[in-house]
Formats: sequence, C-alpha cells, structure tokens
Amino acid sequence: MQDVVDRIRRFRDERDWMQFHDPQNLAMSVTIEAAELLELFQWKDRDQSKEYAVANRERVAEEIADVAIYLLELADNLGIDLKSAINAKLAINEAKYPVEKARGVATKYTDL
Amino acid sequence: MQDVVDRIRRFRDERDWMQFHDPQNLAMSVTIEAAELLELFQWKDRDQSKEYAVANRERVAEEIADVAIYLLELADNLGIDLKSAINAKLAINEAKYPVEKARGVATKYTDL
Amino acid sequence: MQDVVDRIRRFRDERDWMQFHDPQNLAMSVTIEAAELLELFQWKDRDQSKEYAVANRERVAEEIADVAIYLLELADNLGIDLKSAINAKLAINEAKYPVEKARGVATKYTDL
Amino acid sequence: MQDVVDRIRRFRDERDWMQFHDPQNLAMSVTIEAAELLELFQWKDRDQSKEYAVANRERVAEEIADVAIYLLELADNLGIDLKSAINAKLAINEAKYPVEKARGVATKYTDL
Repeated sequence: MQDVVDRIRRFRDERDWMQFHDPQNLAMSVTIEAAELLELFQWKDRDQSKEYAVANRERVAEEIADVAIYLLELADNLGIDLKSAINAKLAINEAKYPVEKARGVATKYTDL
Repeated sequence: MQDVVDRIRRFRDERDWMQFHDPQNLAMSVTIEAAELLELFQWKDRDQSKEYAVANRERVAEEIADVAIYLLELADNLGIDLKSAINAKLAINEAKYPVEKARGVATKYTDL
Repeated sequence: MQDVVDRIRRFRDERDWMQFHDPQNLAMSVTIEAAELLELFQWKDRDQSKEYAVANRERVAEEIADVAIYLLELADNLGIDLKSAINAKLAINEAKYPVEKARGVATKYTDL
Repeated sequence: MQDVVDRIRRFRDERDWMQFHDPQNLAMSVTIEAAELLELFQWKDRDQSKEYAVANRERVAEEIADVAIYLLELADNLGIDLKSAINAKLAINEAKYPVEKARGVATKYTDL
C-alpha cells in the first residue's frame, strides 16, 4: 500500500491541502464517505444489497476507495502503521469473542 | 495486506458470521465505526485535534483499525482489489481538482 | 417544542458553551449521535430490530433524544423554524415521489 | 408537531412504505441524512461554517428537515413521545454536567 499512500501525499501536497488535513477534518471526511457507501444499500434487504453490489461493483468500489483514501491519509499523518493497528485490533477481537461463545450469534458485538 | 485479509476471513468463518456479513450490514458497521473515530475529535478545534491524536495514538489507531477491518472485508467479499480501486479513484480526483485551480482552496470538494 | 428549545438554550448558556456550538460542531454531534442510534440495531435483521425497539424503548428514546437535542439547537441558532422546514421538505418529497409511481417500491429514494 | 407527524404518516401510507420503515432502516436513514447535513460544513473552519449557514439557510434547513422527518417517524412508530424523551435526556445531561464543573470547558462530553 505504500505507493498508494505516496500518491495520496503527493495529491495533497501539490494542492497545498495539508493545512486542512488535521485529524478532525479527516475523521469527518471518513464518516461522510462511509455514509455515502451506506447510502448505496439504503432501503434494500439483505439479498437486494448483495445483488446490488454484484451488479454495481464499480460504483461500490469507488465509495469504498473514498473512505480508504482518507483513512490511509489519517493513519499516515499520525505515523500509525495500519497493518500493525489492524493486527492489534484483531487480536483484541479474537480474545473478546471466543469461538465457542460467538459462533453463529448475530447480535455479537452489541449484546454478547 | 493479504495476510491481514486472511486473518479477517478466518476470524469471521471460525465464528460462522458470514451469514451476517452482507454488504448492507458491513457498510453500516463501517459508518458506525467511522463515527466512533470522529467522536474522539468531537468539540475540539483544529490544534486540539492534533494534540489529542499525538497524545492518544493507540486509541486513535484502534478506531482507525475498526473502520479498516470492515472496509477490507467488504472489498474482499465483493472481489474488489482495494489498491486498484484507490488508484482508480485517485486518478479521478487528480483530474477533478487540477493543481492550478485547487491549490490552497479550503472549500475544495464541496464548492469548487 | 418551544419550551424544550428554551431548556436547551438555558442548559448551554449556563455552561457558557455557545462558543463551541457553531454549525459544524453541532452537525458533527448530530451525526455521531445518529450513528449511536443506528448501533442499537447493528447486526439485527428487520424483525429483530422491531423486537429490540419494543423491548428497549427507553434506550432507543434516549438515543433519539440525543439526535433531536442537537438538531433543535442547530435550527434554533440559525433562526430556522423546524416545523416550516419540515413542511417545505415534505412538499418537495410529495412531488418527487408521486403515489402512483412510488407505491410499494422499496428502492424508492435511491433508484426511482 | 402533531400535524407534521400526521403528514409524515400520510405520505408514507399513501405509498405503502410502512413495510420498509422498520427501526433499523429508519435509523440508517437518519444517519445518512445527518452525514449529508455535516457535508455542508466539510473542510470549513468554525467561522466559515457560520458564514455558510447564514448565506445558505434554505439549503441547511432542507438537510435539517431530512434528518427530522426520519427521526419523528421513528419516534412515532415506537410510540415514543419526543418531547418527553428530550426532557428526560436534558435532565440526565443537567445532572451529568454540573454548571460549576462544565462552565466554558470545550472537551465537555468526551473528557469530563
């Protein structure tokens, strides 16, 4: 991913936008883009959301990319290694949701 | 990132959670986690958000990871190559915001 | 609702918080609270979300109130009459989604 | 607000949309609309967000109304009296943030 991060940095710096890219503004942008991704699946049921995603993969990929771009930049700006951060969080989740208790339980995160 | 994606898949499949991980539920989770990331910077001004991020890098990294985990899984489930998707979107953004017009303009995305 | 708005104003002014309640900070807070409301229904299917809401009405009411409090204050600060604004938007929606075309169509807002 | 709620009900029922308006779908829509409201203030600083709101009051009012419409319908569907819910939450907030401790403190909700 490092070449992608380099391209994000270059895009930002050529436009002199670092001055606007504080953590709050970037987190705001991550959230706004996440809601646009969610909007693609608004009012659909589970099966319709799958059918939509298959039939409109380019559109979905674009919204996913919008979230990812701001998220990668935020991590990069703070000196956070995203891969290490994900591995650390997965270790927490693996301990928090033991296989024998979590298996097949839908309401996992909220009510377990 | 492929080993991270493999670990996300394994985490999900050991718990038999694929049945809940349709695109709508994953996009919902991306949005909920994004808002939790944003909450870290709520009520702070620009400088305070930077100071907070530096002083609480582990906390911020954890929230970034939460967003990234769902986003990576969503892309993986749909057969979307995240790196290609990001590069495609960056190419669009580079064309949409020409350096000479966008340089130093804060209200770039919304009003340009 | 005016007495509720008066209480929101008083709560804010007794704490000298108007200085933080610019439109951006309030819109951020509306979004963060909306995502907390959504989190109550995360991972649930349609029927489960209804059952949860009936069984946890106090909890749901509290999250709805959190969104409403910031939304009412934002409207009040900007001199927006919420009831007029809602009526104006409903008139737009009524014209945009004619009964004969929209009846029973799930993907109404996104694909019509 | 009851006549507004009646109009929201009528709008929904004439289109036979109650079948889609479970709590999860409505909470999702509240969140999506909240993020659209936030988008109006994206990349702006505090003063710019005020100037924008004054100069574009109709636009802001429309996005506020979008959030309010789904929020009012969700409360109505669950038999929640919004005014009582807001008053109950304000009483909690008044106790949680005593005037003498909260006065002028920006990071109130997150760090107090």
